[in-house]
Amino acid sequence: MGKLLVVGTVAFDAIETPFGKTDKILGGAATYIALAAKNVAAIDTAVVSVVGSDFPEAHLQLFRDRDVNISGLEIVPDGKTFFWSGKYHNDLNVRDTLATELNVLADFKPVVPQDYQDADIVMLGNLHPGVQLSVIEQMTKKPKLIVLDTMNFWMDHTLDLLMDVIKKVDVITINDEEARQLSGEYSLVKAAAKIHEMGPAYVVIKKGEHGALLFHDKQVFFAPALPLEEVFDPTGAGDSFAGGFVGYLAQSENISFENMKNAVIHGSNIASFCVEKFGTERLIDLDQEVLKDRLKQFIALTQFNIDLA
Amino acid sequence: MGKLLVVGTVAFDAIETPFGKTDKILGGAATYIALAAKNVAAIDTAVVSVVGSDFPEAHLQLFRDRDVNISGLEIVPDGKTFFWSGKYHNDLNVRDTLATELNVLADFKPVVPQDYQDADIVMLGNLHPGVQLSVIEQMTKKPKLIVLDTMNFWMDHTLDLLMDVIKKVDVITINDEEARQLSGEYSLVKAAAKIHEMGPAYVVIKKGEHGALLFHDKQVFFAPALPLEEVFDPTGAGDSFAGGFVGYLAQSENISFENMKNAVIHGSNIASFCVEKFGTERLIDLDQEVLKDRLKQFIALTQFNIDLA
Repeated sequence: MGKLLVVGTVAFDAIETPFGKTDKILGGAATYIALAAKNVAAIDTAVVSVVGSDFPEAHLQLFRDRDVNISGLEIVPDGKTFFWSGKYHNDLNVRDTLATELNVLADFKPVVPQDYQDADIVMLGNLHPGVQLSVIEQMTKKPKLIVLDTMNFWMDHTLDLLMDVIKKVDVITINDEEARQLSGEYSLVKAAAKIHEMGPAYVVIKKGEHGALLFHDKQVFFAPALPLEEVFDPTGAGDSFAGGFVGYLAQSENISFENMKNAVIHGSNIASFCVEKFGTERLIDLDQEVLKDRLKQFIALTQFNIDLA
Repeated sequence: MGKLLVVGTVAFDAIETPFGKTDKILGGAATYIALAAKNVAAIDTAVVSVVGSDFPEAHLQLFRDRDVNISGLEIVPDGKTFFWSGKYHNDLNVRDTLATELNVLADFKPVVPQDYQDADIVMLGNLHPGVQLSVIEQMTKKPKLIVLDTMNFWMDHTLDLLMDVIKKVDVITINDEEARQLSGEYSLVKAAAKIHEMGPAYVVIKKGEHGALLFHDKQVFFAPALPLEEVFDPTGAGDSFAGGFVGYLAQSENISFENMKNAVIHGSNIASFCVEKFGTERLIDLDQEVLKDRLKQFIALTQFNIDLA
């Protein structure tokens, strides 16, 4: 059974969707990734992140209850936790950021706990590429797989540093617009080919409700999003996808392209739950039978039987 | 082996894309449907449509060479063939219609040849719902399957008549925006459920480069579009999809939901060729080995192996 190290934000989010709004709730990339990974697989998982002294004990306990190691979660005395606030349009693919308060994240120096410096899989959730790079450099054993998630903000502001990170990772997950921005190619096939050349052997392009593409050499795999009656809150869907992806890979200890196909389906599966309620609400009350039933839906959704003999 | 009857436009198209432009070339829904169907299956196929005396003999011969029965293709003496002209943006999902000249289509009264009044599958390509209705009424034997393609224009201008047609068909294929317009629902799952209630037991929602969804009762199947390096000309992709879908169903004589999954893949496969060149160019030079190779790509693209035991 593999060991998973997750770095990323642990945050307060305030979210408004056409269906309602929340006060400050638990959010952040590392939160979604770890919770999603733990739903998909009972793997040894640690989070490296930072919060302020305003971060409630109940949230810390939520991680502990799910057996997520938070020895690498720094708590800054008198610091304030990173805060993000956003409002989604009726078309949930469009959102406005209302507030971004970096707070303790501004000076964050990640420290990887000693017993995770040999993690099998390192998942670099979306945050400053300098932090991501520091985590890679603290690994004493070369990880079997390093997975990077990032976004356009870092392409706009810290591209050189981001490119240094991209060079060092095996898998990158970004959305379609970001893939186009990073590569300068409109066609996602061409974009993936260019991003390959930057370093990652595997490129995952997330298309939200339109699913996700996994590229490797000349090969490509596609996982649809599950068609849902209603998406309630898309926040964290991409991070949940990444969490399910690495969780499954860590558990199966098989990083072949064929097994990554399965990992992408597990990622899509857990993401389909994430969007059903606000924030992490759905990820913290899931049981294995429900997850498995929905995997069956993914099989029915995508598998066919054309005989080419 | 089933018999296929296709009604729809046979037209001249003038197309401009970011990659080039054409003079008046062969186009029209029935043209794409018949050519696609014939590529997918060597089924007995007839086209009911109308052209003017300006329609070249070479185009008629193109149908005959591919063994498409055109005894129901009326040629109006001194009439002019339906003409459509359009220009695609750099984002090929957006196009402007530059000209639509109905010409002989304005007074078209379709006549179904006697030996196709018992066709197994009737494919109603996109045109006036009155023409579609007339074709249904001329069938002397209840077809095993009636498939309808339509578009927003008819929803805007002849909704009552269109609803009469929708009531009588087994399958409807429309794009995502049209499904939303027809149903008043944004969620495609909800839209499909409402359209079911209007008549069709099967609802196919086409999402262009984002693939197609097939709904039936509570079941849903998804076929991605093949990720291509470049889409050259999207004209006819939806019609080719429909042609591949009905061609495969006519050949296999199996209209179960499970087999419709295969049909949707065959439709996506032939559509992936259509967009590689202008107009019908790619559909008229395809060989079976090439088609089969790409089906293998669809299998690699979508099939995974998660063991739920």
